[in-house]
Amino acid sequence: MDEIWFTEQQTDHLRLGFRVGTVLHRARSRFQDVVVVETPSHGRLLALDGFVQTTDMDEHCYHEMLIHVAACSHPRPERALIIGGGDGGAAREALRHCGAVDLCEIDGEVVDVAKRFFPALSGTLDKVNVHIADGIEFVAKRHQAYDLIYIDSSEPVGPGEGLFTPAFYRTVAAALRPGGMAVAQSESPFYNLDVLRRVRTGMAAGFPQVATYLGPVPTYPSGTWSYTVGSLGPDPSLAARPAPVGLRFYTPAVHTAAFALPAFLQEALA
Amino acid sequence: MDEIWFTEQQTDHLRLGFRVGTVLHRARSRFQDVVVVETPSHGRLLALDGFVQTTDMDEHCYHEMLIHVAACSHPRPERALIIGGGDGGAAREALRHCGAVDLCEIDGEVVDVAKRFFPALSGTLDKVNVHIADGIEFVAKRHQAYDLIYIDSSEPVGPGEGLFTPAFYRTVAAALRPGGMAVAQSESPFYNLDVLRRVRTGMAAGFPQVATYLGPVPTYPSGTWSYTVGSLGPDPSLAARPAPVGLRFYTPAVHTAAFALPAFLQEALA
Repeated sequence: MDEIWFTEQQTDHLRLGFRVGTVLHRARSRFQDVVVVETPSHGRLLALDGFVQTTDMDEHCYHEMLIHVAACSHPRPERALIIGGGDGGAAREALRHCGAVDLCEIDGEVVDVAKRFFPALSGTLDKVNVHIADGIEFVAKRHQAYDLIYIDSSEPVGPGEGLFTPAFYRTVAAALRPGGMAVAQSESPFYNLDVLRRVRTGMAAGFPQVATYLGPVPTYPSGTWSYTVGSLGPDPSLAARPAPVGLRFYTPAVHTAAFALPAFLQEALA
Repeated sequence: MDEIWFTEQQTDHLRLGFRVGTVLHRARSRFQDVVVVETPSHGRLLALDGFVQTTDMDEHCYHEMLIHVAACSHPRPERALIIGGGDGGAAREALRHCGAVDLCEIDGEVVDVAKRFFPALSGTLDKVNVHIADGIEFVAKRHQAYDLIYIDSSEPVGPGEGLFTPAFYRTVAAALRPGGMAVAQSESPFYNLDVLRRVRTGMAAGFPQVATYLGPVPTYPSGTWSYTVGSLGPDPSLAARPAPVGLRFYTPAVHTAAFALPAFLQEALA
């Protein structure tokens, strides 16, 4: 076996390395470095600016927990917006709930690469209104338009940076219908507590209820990821509707359990 | 910053690397390679045969979830046995519940290294009866002696191998008092499903009730770890007693939540 590795520098002091079978794509888009490799352990892996965004092996862990918690808490979601999420995985899950899904991705090359190399994620993008645009500008033009808004951003450096500010979350809240909810990925509760706190502070500027929940994502730093939900109405920790059929990760029991934060995290967020 | 790294080869295809400040200890014991390094990100790290056993940064995630779930389900635990766990972390947590704790570690050098380099883990080992012996032989000589038995083993290769057999779990059950419980670490639910299944099959040979629960451990492969509990009486998913004070991870809500398995895992274990 030869020794070609994709190594993610997760922090200055921590690296995660995947053995590489084939390098399928490697280019610089207008916004970022886009890499797709085939790995023997995790199937295809997409990295942006060196950070793992998704792998075939565990994309469902992330996308199901990102989408279904708020979607199953909402009594009747009809319209959803996904900001970021150009790979299509979040949109695929949102379509299980909503007849109308908009997706606003700043980098068209992410969508193109997903269509070429990640059919299981991008296969339902033809049922979605895809806008290649800045999510911040896009959402600012919408007023009471959505039941659910998902911020499926990359790290808060590079193109994702503006998605972590209070001003942004106020425009997100204004783009929601009454009783709507917004969910943002808020990084690792172990390694990125600063980011998680920023998302919570930002959300609190736009939403009366803010809660954080957790779920495993093996290929993300620390293997546990946090999601922060702001609600204009429903209690996001309660599953009000049954789960869609055919899921691989989410269950109603997992939904409730995801809000049980470990003692250190409760304290850090108090 | 120079570039010395401790790299764990988690599988043939996956590596986790920690930047190393100082190599504190590196020797071969009678049983295995024992390495202690100081890292800038995770404090001190203990590895056996190249596998990360514990780090200062996240040892509490593992030790609290290993110990407190069964201990808080048991109405009145008095005597506990830990098999393996020479670093002392599991014993420290068991002492929060039980007046009498035996620890049976096959490799005395692990205990010595823990006493030298991991005072936060080994600091309470003087309150524990430490036996340097083979856990399989040790437990076979005990009859209805313990309320709680913990199998804090290393991987099922090398010295830990015999701790994954049905014969072993039958002797474990025989060493428990009526209503007792045993817990074994059962590896990653994402990367070691074969081991998890072996532990469950083994446990079922000795226990009428077997259940698996999960918890995050950032430095273990996939970042999520599984624990399998066999019970002769109490329902291990119910916290019957309040949590000890001063914990950093475990709460009663985390206890219940840990048994909510993702859909793929429920299916894989059905």
